[in-house]
Amino acid sequence: MKFKHFTTGIAALLLLSNAIQLQAQEISAMQAPKVVSPEIAADNSVTFRVLSEKANEVTLNGSWMGFGKTVPLTKGEQGVWSVTIDPLTSSMYHYNLFIDGVAAIDPTNPQALRDGTRYASMLMVEGEGSKVFQLNETPHGNISQVWYESPSLGLDRRMYVYTPPGYESGKDSYPVLYLLHGAGGDEDAWTSLGRANLILDNLIASGKSKAMIVVMTNGNAWQTSSLRNAPGIGNITRENFAQYQGKFEKSLVEDVVPYVEKNYRVKAEKNSRALAGLSMGGGHTITASITYPGTFGYIGVFSSGIFDANADMAELEKKFTALKTSGVSKYWVACGKEDFVMESNKRLLSILDKTGFEHEYFENEGGHTWANWRTYLSMFSPMLFQ
Amino acid sequence: MKFKHFTTGIAALLLLSNAIQLQAQEISAMQAPKVVSPEIAADNSVTFRVLSEKANEVTLNGSWMGFGKTVPLTKGEQGVWSVTIDPLTSSMYHYNLFIDGVAAIDPTNPQALRDGTRYASMLMVEGEGSKVFQLNETPHGNISQVWYESPSLGLDRRMYVYTPPGYESGKDSYPVLYLLHGAGGDEDAWTSLGRANLILDNLIASGKSKAMIVVMTNGNAWQTSSLRNAPGIGNITRENFAQYQGKFEKSLVEDVVPYVEKNYRVKAEKNSRALAGLSMGGGHTITASITYPGTFGYIGVFSSGIFDANADMAELEKKFTALKTSGVSKYWVACGKEDFVMESNKRLLSILDKTGFEHEYFENEGGHTWANWRTYLSMFSPMLFQ
Repeated sequence: MKFKHFTTGIAALLLLSNAIQLQAQEISAMQAPKVVSPEIAADNSVTFRVLSEKANEVTLNGSWMGFGKTVPLTKGEQGVWSVTIDPLTSSMYHYNLFIDGVAAIDPTNPQALRDGTRYASMLMVEGEGSKVFQLNETPHGNISQVWYESPSLGLDRRMYVYTPPGYESGKDSYPVLYLLHGAGGDEDAWTSLGRANLILDNLIASGKSKAMIVVMTNGNAWQTSSLRNAPGIGNITRENFAQYQGKFEKSLVEDVVPYVEKNYRVKAEKNSRALAGLSMGGGHTITASITYPGTFGYIGVFSSGIFDANADMAELEKKFTALKTSGVSKYWVACGKEDFVMESNKRLLSILDKTGFEHEYFENEGGHTWANWRTYLSMFSPMLFQ
Repeated sequence: MKFKHFTTGIAALLLLSNAIQLQAQEISAMQAPKVVSPEIAADNSVTFRVLSEKANEVTLNGSWMGFGKTVPLTKGEQGVWSVTIDPLTSSMYHYNLFIDGVAAIDPTNPQALRDGTRYASMLMVEGEGSKVFQLNETPHGNISQVWYESPSLGLDRRMYVYTPPGYESGKDSYPVLYLLHGAGGDEDAWTSLGRANLILDNLIASGKSKAMIVVMTNGNAWQTSSLRNAPGIGNITRENFAQYQGKFEKSLVEDVVPYVEKNYRVKAEKNSRALAGLSMGGGHTITASITYPGTFGYIGVFSSGIFDANADMAELEKKFTALKTSGVSKYWVACGKEDFVMESNKRLLSILDKTGFEHEYFENEGGHTWANWRTYLSMFSPMLFQ
C-alpha cells in the first residue's frame, strides 16, 4: 500500500528540510532543543537551563519558593545558564525564568500553565504526591466549554463542565459539584492549575469519589468568559468592582443551576448539589449558601472565610442558623497555617461554632497555593454524595 | 442586604492589600502594569514595550514578518524598551519578544497562544479582516474535550468537538466537518490558532454556513492527546515516525467517525461528512479520502498536496478515479503563492486534472501561515452541506 506512505511520513521530513520557511508550530515538534530544561534527576533535584550569550542576569522563581523570591542561574559554556535546586517532593509546580528581570516561560519546556493573566512553565515531579492529579491510565471525563444565558447579569457567559467517564454513552443521572475559583482566576483556573478533571478521573477510577458532574463557572460578574469583559467594561477598579458585589452568587443559583439541571442528566435535589470554592470563590460559596438555604447539601470553603472584620455577626449568625436548619450534609472548611486569610477563616469557624453548625475543619502546612487547593479538592470530593 | 457585600468585594481588596503573600493568579488581575504592551494606535500601528533595566538587547518577531526575522526595540527612560511598527492590516497575529536572545511572551499581554510546543503572545488588530474570527456578539457553540477509544491505535485519545449553538438544547441532527491540523500541532491547534469555533459561530450567525459539528482530532498517532505521548513512546525521531504512517487515517475513519456518529446527533451519510486539513493534515485528508472512498462528500486540502515527488502516479490516478466515481460533492484545494509546499500542491492539482476530477482551486498571497488557514476555513465552510 505504497500510496498510504507518501503523505504523512514524507510530509514531516519535507517540513523539516524546509524549516527555515515554516511557522513555529510546523517545526517545533521536530527541532532538537539546544538545552534540556527542566531536567528532573532520580533524587527529584531539578536543573533548569536557558541559552543566552547576551543576558546579564538570569533568575528563577518557582511556586515552591513563594512569591517574589528568586535564585540565580550561572552562566556556563556556550552561553548556557543553569541552576540545580534541591530535591522537591512529588507535586505539580510552576515557575518563571527572569531574563534580565523580564518574566519568561522556559522556552524549552513545552508545558505552560495559564495563571489568570500570566503564564508560567509547568513542572511535574511525579511520585506519591502527584498521583491524584496526574494524567493516569484511567478512563477520562470530558471537559466542555459551555456558553449559557445569564439573565441575572444580562450576558451570555462561559463555564467549563466536567462530565465523568461514561456520561456521554450512558443514561444515568449524576450529582453536581459547583466549583468556584479565586480572584484573578476565571473558568479555566480549576482545570488548568487545579487539575480538577484529573483529580475526579483518578478518584472516580479508584472508587473513592462518586461519579459526578463538576461545573466550573467564571466568578467575575463583569466578564463573559476568560476571553472578554462584558461589552462596555474596561479595566476593573475598586470603584466599579463594587457594583458587581453579590451578583455572581445570584447568577450562580438563579441562572447556572437551572441551566445545568435542564441540559444535563442530573439529580436535581439538594443532597445531589455541592458547592465549594477557594479564596474569593470561598466567599462566593459562603454568600450563595446562606442567601439560598436549602439549595446545596454539601459546602466546602477553601482558604477563605468572613473577610469583613466589621461584618454584622448577629445577622450572619441568624443566616447561618437558617442554613443549618435547612439541612446541610457536610460543611467542610480548610485552610493552610501560613495562609494570610487565617483571620477570615477563624471568623467563619467562630460563626459555625456559635451557631452549633456541625462542620469539619482541616488545617495543613502552607499558604494560599494551588498545591493546597488541589489537596483540598482531593479530600472534599470523596465526602460528597455518599 | 449587608451580608451579601462582605464576601466578594472585600475579598478583592483584602487580596490586594496582602499582595506580597499571594500567588500570581490571585493578584495579576488587580495589578496596574508598569508598561502597556501591545498598544494599537488608531492607524493600526502597534507599539510594543517591555521593562528591563538590565537587558543588553531586546528584539521582536511577529507572525507578520515571517520566520526568523526580528526588529530591535530601543531602550528608553526607566528601562522601558519599545518599538512601533508600521500599521498592520486587521487580522490576528502572534509575536515573541527576545530578551537577550531568549524567546519570551510579552509579560504585560494577558493573551497568549499555544503554538504546538511553544507559546506566543496574541495580537488582534480588529477590523474588516478579523471580523470572521473575532469573538462577536453572536450565539456561541461549545467546545468539548472528548476522550474516545481508538482500537486502531490501542489508545484512549482526545479530540475537540465543536457543537453549534442550539445543539445541546435541541433535537436536530447535524452534518460533521472533520478538521485536521498540521505537523507540530495537535487537537488544540484549530481552536487556539485557527479559531475554528469562532469562525463557525460567525458564519452560522450570518447564515453563510450551515450549522455543523466540527471534530478536531489529534493527527499524531503516537499521542493520546496534547497532554501525553502513548505509554512507552519518547521523542519522535525520523526512525520511529515511520511506524505510524497511515495509522492516523485508519483511526480517523474506523474509530473517530463511528464514535461521533454513535454519540452525537449527526446525519450519518456521505453528503453530511466533510474532511479538510492543513499541511500534514491535508496529507491525511488526501490519504483518508482515497483509502475510504464513499465516506466523505466534501474534501478540502489546505497548503498541502502530494509530498512524495517519486510517488507512483499511475496508482494514485487509479485511486483518485475510484474516489471520483464514489461521488464527491466538492473537492476544494487552496495554497498560498509563497508556500513552500507549492510543488506538492501542483502534483495534487495535476492528478485531479488528469483524472478529470471536478475541483476548485484557490490561490492567494502568503505562505504556510495560520492567517491563510483561517481564511481557507472561512471560505470552505460555507461551501459545505448546501
